[in-house]
Amino acid sequence: MTGTLYGLGVGPGDPELLTLKAARLLASVPVVAFPEPMSGDSLARRIAKPHFRPGIEEIPLRMSCDPAQRDDDGYDQGASIVAGHLEAGRDVAVLCEGDPFFYGSFAYLFARLGGRFPVSVVPGVASVMACSAALDHPLTARDDALVVIPAPRPEADIERLLEAAEAAAIMKIGRHLPKVVGVLNRLGLADCARYIERAAQPGQRILAIGEVERAPYFSMILVHKRGKAWM
Amino acid sequence: MTGTLYGLGVGPGDPELLTLKAARLLASVPVVAFPEPMSGDSLARRIAKPHFRPGIEEIPLRMSCDPAQRDDDGYDQGASIVAGHLEAGRDVAVLCEGDPFFYGSFAYLFARLGGRFPVSVVPGVASVMACSAALDHPLTARDDALVVIPAPRPEADIERLLEAAEAAAIMKIGRHLPKVVGVLNRLGLADCARYIERAAQPGQRILAIGEVERAPYFSMILVHKRGKAWM
Repeated sequence: MTGTLYGLGVGPGDPELLTLKAARLLASVPVVAFPEPMSGDSLARRIAKPHFRPGIEEIPLRMSCDPAQRDDDGYDQGASIVAGHLEAGRDVAVLCEGDPFFYGSFAYLFARLGGRFPVSVVPGVASVMACSAALDHPLTARDDALVVIPAPRPEADIERLLEAAEAAAIMKIGRHLPKVVGVLNRLGLADCARYIERAAQPGQRILAIGEVERAPYFSMILVHKRGKAWM
Repeated sequence: MTGTLYGLGVGPGDPELLTLKAARLLASVPVVAFPEPMSGDSLARRIAKPHFRPGIEEIPLRMSCDPAQRDDDGYDQGASIVAGHLEAGRDVAVLCEGDPFFYGSFAYLFARLGGRFPVSVVPGVASVMACSAALDHPLTARDDALVVIPAPRPEADIERLLEAAEAAAIMKIGRHLPKVVGVLNRLGLADCARYIERAAQPGQRILAIGEVERAPYFSMILVHKRGKAWM
């Protein structure tokens, strides 16, 4: 009997935005794995830790979901450690900020282990939802179309996607800030866009587009073309 | 002192996909309101009920988020009842399936009461995330763009949006099924699309596009152009 690989969404940052299901599983699985950043501690671990079963085994994984920091050897190594526990019959919960299947580094583990072991994904509150709650503005209403655009995409892609829908979430801003701001200005969308970083976390910041000087990787710009006309 | 209007995301259907924050608030607010369907009981209420504070006052609202069933008088009436409690200083939690600001009928209440009372939105697990977990396939990875498309949109819009991104979620299928299937076939996307209804609920059904005969309003088609090539 092999163990089950759980992809556990732990939400966007606020520890209270964990689901009851994630909390229950954390209290029962013997092994937990989580992406560990290059510096600082793991946000996913910090969110989940109060629910860990006593004596739980912790596996920090060197896995970034930033494609610029992609590291196939690191993913292979992480997958191999997790596989060892699963083969020994131990369930492993892999903690994922936000939702595991929404731009999560869990995809890299899933790609390597999904065929070999039973997998169960527990969806979580995605950062996009946390951002629209923090901005106090509906993301989509009625029959709005929404596009989610990773900022590393080429400028022409971002422009084309922004033109295609009534609402947009531009993710992973980071060093792509000048490019994204340029497109928003060119399309005349800067006034219906807002920038937010660390949504649902301490240090949350909301800025108008013209006020943003630099952006971390985990930041987002939401665009609502309708403005207040969504009612 | 007026009360606070909470928009409370209760998740996609599985009662365990409620957040800890939503559970805590339900145990403390004196008044809860929820959309009541034309027939049958309220899914949002069923999810949240185990956490209700004893003696909580319940307000069923006749509010559909189906624009075809739009009813401004009903929204005005609901808002006026909720406003009465807020004016009397009582906090009111409005239950929202999924996430309140993601295609939720909460937008109608927010539009009427947002300026007059303090509002706090508690994000929830959206149905899109529950669907990709159920389909056991990452919705987006790396720098995929995602489009979310309400099926009531005109055929040309659906086609244009589907062409714009690597992944798509087509929501609110219902009577628009033949139109949507027609577009998927024309674009050669039927094989990388799957249909799901009642995700994270009893009676969940997953079907290939060619197998779907009729669809309820709360159903979804997810499209992954990359297929298994996302790894």
